Order: sequence, then C-alpha cells, then structure tokens
Amino acid sequence: MLNFSFHNPTRIHFGKNQIKKISHEIPKDARVLITYGGGSVKTTGLLDKIKTVLKGYEVLEFGGIEPNPSYETMMGCVELVKEENVDFLLAVGGGSVIDGTKFVAAAALYDGEPWDILKTFGSGVTEALPFGVVLTLPATGSEMNSGSVITRHSERAKLFFSNPNVFPYFSVLDPTLTFTLPRKQIGNGVVDAFTHVMEQYMTCPVAGHIQDRFAEGLLATLIEQGPLALKEPENYDVRANIMWCATLALNGLIGSGVPQDWSTHMIGHEITALYGLDHAQTLAIVLPAMLTVRTNDKREKLLQYGKRIWNITEGDDDERISASIKKTREFFHAMELKTKLSDYEIPPEGIDAIITQLEAHGMVLLGEKQDVNPAVCRKVLELCY
Amino acid sequence: MLNFSFHNPTRIHFGKNQIKKISHEIPKDARVLITYGGGSVKTTGLLDKIKTVLKGYEVLEFGGIEPNPSYETMMGCVELVKEENVDFLLAVGGGSVIDGTKFVAAAALYDGEPWDILKTFGSGVTEALPFGVVLTLPATGSEMNSGSVITRHSERAKLFFSNPNVFPYFSVLDPTLTFTLPRKQIGNGVVDAFTHVMEQYMTCPVAGHIQDRFAEGLLATLIEQGPLALKEPENYDVRANIMWCATLALNGLIGSGVPQDWSTHMIGHEITALYGLDHAQTLAIVLPAMLTVRTNDKREKLLQYGKRIWNITEGDDDERISASIKKTREFFHAMELKTKLSDYEIPPEGIDAIITQLEAHGMVLLGEKQDVNPAVCRKVLELCY
Repeated sequence: MLNFSFHNPTRIHFGKNQIKKISHEIPKDARVLITYGGGSVKTTGLLDKIKTVLKGYEVLEFGGIEPNPSYETMMGCVELVKEENVDFLLAVGGGSVIDGTKFVAAAALYDGEPWDILKTFGSGVTEALPFGVVLTLPATGSEMNSGSVITRHSERAKLFFSNPNVFPYFSVLDPTLTFTLPRKQIGNGVVDAFTHVMEQYMTCPVAGHIQDRFAEGLLATLIEQGPLALKEPENYDVRANIMWCATLALNGLIGSGVPQDWSTHMIGHEITALYGLDHAQTLAIVLPAMLTVRTNDKREKLLQYGKRIWNITEGDDDERISASIKKTREFFHAMELKTKLSDYEIPPEGIDAIITQLEAHGMVLLGEKQDVNPAVCRKVLELCY
Repeated sequence: MLNFSFHNPTRIHFGKNQIKKISHEIPKDARVLITYGGGSVKTTGLLDKIKTVLKGYEVLEFGGIEPNPSYETMMGCVELVKEENVDFLLAVGGGSVIDGTKFVAAAALYDGEPWDILKTFGSGVTEALPFGVVLTLPATGSEMNSGSVITRHSERAKLFFSNPNVFPYFSVLDPTLTFTLPRKQIGNGVVDAFTHVMEQYMTCPVAGHIQDRFAEGLLATLIEQGPLALKEPENYDVRANIMWCATLALNGLIGSGVPQDWSTHMIGHEITALYGLDHAQTLAIVLPAMLTVRTNDKREKLLQYGKRIWNITEGDDDERISASIKKTREFFHAMELKTKLSDYEIPPEGIDAIITQLEAHGMVLLGEKQDVNPAVCRKVLELCY
C-alpha cells in the first residue's frame, strides 16, 4: 500500500427532506447566492422550496450555468459575488453547477488573474468563499471533493483544478430529487461514477486489498442498480444507492494509498472540448478501448476485475480479459450509452485534432505509470471506431 | 436506505515515516501533552522519535493509561492539563490511550461534574481541547471517530460517550509501529475490528447495498489478512491492510444509512468490567452466541454473509446459517481467541451478575430493534458455555 494523507471535511445530509438542514448550516447573517443551471430547479419547484427554508436570509440568484461550466459564464458570477458582497454560495444542481461554484468560490478571493487558478491546477488558491450544495444529479462526486473542471471556449480548453479550500462545507443528497431526471442523465451519471472507480482501481496492484474491495463494491452496486434506475425511476432505494455510490466513487477514499490512472478522463475532456459530447459519453467510448490497449499493464487487475465483478473464470487470461472488457461495454450499452466515436459521426481525422489538443494542454505522459504518451493515446482512439 | 448525516473531519496521515507530519499539524506555540500507556512507547524508542519531531515545542508527558482506561486515572490527567495550561493533546497508543485522551479533552473544558459526560453519553459536551493521535495498535477505530469508552472502578461501570468535538484533529497511522506488538494484541485487534463491522452489518436489510458491500469488503480483508498478520509480523502490506481496515470499520461510514446493533458490545463491556477480560476476548465469546440466538431476526443478512463471505451455498437456510456462525467462531480461533466464558473459568453464576450490571446501566433494550432485553441476553450468555 502506498503512503497517503486523507482528509474530507464535507458534511453530508442524506435522505428524504434533508433540505431543511440547510438553514442550520449557513450563518444567519450570510448573504447567500444560489447558483444553478438551466432552470429545471425552477420548474420542479426545488428553488422555491430552498428559498422557503432560507426565509430570513438575504438571498440572490445566479442561473444559467451550462453543462461543462465555462470560464466565461462563471466569471460573470464572480463579478456578481464581488459587487453584491456575497459571503456564502449555495450550488443547486449537478457536477457542472458545483464545479462552476467551486471556481467562483476560489476566484472571488483570488489575488491575480483567475485563469491562473486553472493553469496552475489550483496550487495557488489560499482561500475561498464557503459554499454548500443541494445535489440534483448523481454523477461526478463533486459534492464531496475538492476538484473542479472548467471549460474556456476561447482556448478550446477543459481544465481541472483542485484545492482543499473548495471542499463543500455541506452537501444535501436527497434521492427523491433525481426522480424527474431524464433517462440520459441517469445513464451518464452511472457511467461517470463507474469510470471514476475504474480510474482508481484498474491500475497496478500495490496490495491495497481494502481499497480494491471498496472499489469492487461500488462497481458491483452500480452494475446491479444502474439498469434498475432506468427501469424504475421512482424506486427510492435504487436512486439512493446510485447517489451514494457516485459520491463515494470520488471522495478521495478509494483512491487513497493506490496508484491512479485518469488517462481516459483526460482524453475524454478533449473530445468534449472539441466535439461537445457529454462527459460520460466520452468515457463510455474511451474506457473500453483504453483497457484493451493497456491490457499488459493492467493484466493482474483486469483478471481480478473479471473474476470478482463479472464472475468470469473460463478461458485463458487473454480470453478472460477480453470477455471482461466486452461485459464493460455491454454495461455501458445497458445504460444507453454508445461506445464508439463513429456512433457520434466524428470522422477518423478527429484523432489528429484530439492528439494535438492533448499535447497543447501538456497531457503527454498520462496514466498510473506516466507512459500513456500521444502514441498510446492514438492507438486508443483508433480503437474507438 | 435510512436517512443519515455523515461528517468525519479527522485528517489521516498513513504510511511509513508519517510521524514527521505531526509538526505541521500542531500550532507552533502550543503546550503539548503526550499521553501514553504502559511504557512500550519508551522501550521501542517511539516517544523519543516523537519528541525529536516536536523539537521547539513545550512538551509534557502523562503515561500509565491502562487498558480499559479508568476515570480515576484520566481525572489525574485532567488535573495536570489544567495546572499546566496544556492546549494540545497528543495520544500515542491504541484505543485505550485515545479513548482516555478524548475524555480528558472534553473534561478539561467541561463546566460541571466530569462523570456526567459519561452519564449523559456525551450530549452535554460543547467544546474540547484539540488533540492528535499516533496510533500503535489497530483495533478500536478510535483514531478516526468521536467515541470513547471509560471504566469507573468504584462503580464497576464501563460507559460510552460520543461527541463531535472529540474527533481527533489528525491521526498518524504507521503500520511499521505494529511490527513489535504481541500476538495477542494483533488477535484482539482483528477480532475487535471484525465485530465492529458485524454490529453495523448484521442487522435487518434496508437496501443499503453499498454499505453491505463495504462492510463485506472489510470482513473479507480481515479474514484474509488477519491470520497472515500473526504468521508474518513484519509484512508491511499485511499490517497496513489490518490497520486501515480497523480504522474504516468504525469511522462512521459503513454504519451510515443502516440500522446498527451493538448488543454484543454492551454485554462484552459488562464482562470486562466484572471479570477483567480483554475487550476483544468478550466479543469473540458473545458474537457467535448472539448470532445463534437471534438467527430469526438476522436471517436474511446471515444468509447473505454466509454466501458472500464464506461461500456457503449448500444445505437449507438453517444449515447454512449454522455453518456461517461456525466459520466465524473458527476465524476467532485462528486469531487465537477463545469463544466460551468457560474457557476463562467464569462460573455459570456469572450470568446473573452480568445481567444485573446490564440492568443497572440501563442496557435493557439493546439491538437494532431494541428488543434484546435481559431475557434474550441471558439466553445468549447461556450459549457462551
């Protein structure tokens, strides 16, 4: 097991009607800015419900945060925060709203050019506004971690930053809020969480036995509950398991003490930035191809994955690995995601553009051994057709 | 899944040489009191190592904290803290030293009779001195939770308190510090951690699928690594897995959103208070008997446990359950613990004394359904012969 430090101070309030806890968590004299996305929080009545809970507070709003939240949009929010002397943010939405709000929390107090927060991966952030979360979409885990991904359209860049100051102060996870989500968002969310686990699990073994077991527990639960979540949208327990799994998939726990990969994510980010695919759509395409190309590096864990998750025990090693990757792809299909770039009519010349962008963003030594170079990425992308 | 709130702010530094992190965690101007147990921290050189890391700090010591830390001893420490204006505590040891230190942290700032902290289960604690931990014995999980058990000899009482103010500020978990532990302490530690998991897992199903998977992951890892820890005392990875499992077994995570039992622990506490058995020795006796007596209440989970943990799939339900309990007992034997009260020459009349103590301490409606009354406890104890 590798050395590690682990610290996750986010307070979770999980379950039905937990929204009422918000008012215990925010200082009574705070000027609160509620941030949200496309307006479904209005049509579902959630925003009104939250405002009722926040009766007595000074409350402002900033809506319109788009999927893959943009630097351009979020800088508008930073201005509002400064003008209005906001001192507490409340993100109501999924990963995009939370990620965008994390950036605002950091940028509002940042002494310098805010884009540098992204360019330095968050290392220069020394303080941030406190913020809470009401989660509406289980997927990214952003509700219980300190990472954020921001897109800057003028640079065609989708970049990540992380800093201990941007852990949410609290997050409300009410599974009933997911009942009305479109099927596509459930499929995306489950595949996103699944891939988060795989990026921390499917590497080289370091005797992190308990990390492996936890990761496998998340994978097994997502595989079991994911299709049920599509079939029975108002099954509370199914949605509760999906929601808690997605949070635990990326709250730092299963990745502590083990190597991590993340090359699938880095390639996926470039595909989204160039072609506008949903984040999870890119992962469903890249992950199976990545596992195929890197079979030798990941042999031992792929065999363990096949045996423990898919109960694959027949055939020689290569056959079992190939069967496991096939099962993974089939699971993504069951979640109604496609697994080829060609399914989205991205022409093969797109590969060059993606590789160029990876190089432009310094993503040239990816993976748990930092040997996933542009040539390896090209092989992976070629397998995505 | 049940509603829950989860918050665990303890910072973990895990691995070789992580002791050096201590000096980053304690304010430079703090007056630090190091608390410890029987003196092995001196003979192993650990205390000197810590003092070297704390060079420049004002450091005091309080040693002699016994297993099952006593109110009488810890009140001596409270006096020292007050006299010397200590403002940071550093517990160096296992669960007993940490539990005792938690009590001191709370009692030093408590406005009232300190015994009331125990009598009110910690509900009246509003502040506590900050403290850190250097863990030497993986077992109780106290290094990453807010609970503490204190024994008061004059009352023959072993009572529990819990309060969010007594989470350790940080805990250093260095598996190499466990290399020199006596076999008995490893056996005890593994059985303690195993039983912590069982108290949160072996209840009635509430569709907490991911909690079940995590709990099963801990059980499987303890069963696999526990005997290896006895066989290969200096196998780092084995000790690392045991240590991290013991912490995760009782840091609040696997018990969130599911019912909890704890009746085995409550009976065990009385046995320790009356007859001086080690905590884990009592658990190894009571747990198999409790599972046998409460087979009907726990039927579904016992079958799941048998299948997933022990791969028991043959026979009818009762046969499979009985085989699972037998396997559990055999595992405790493999960890070199006995599983009968008679093994410790406690006469059958002891049952009356234990029941009387349970009643005296208000422990009359135990278990996940609060129906483990003295009559049920008596049946359990009768099976411990």
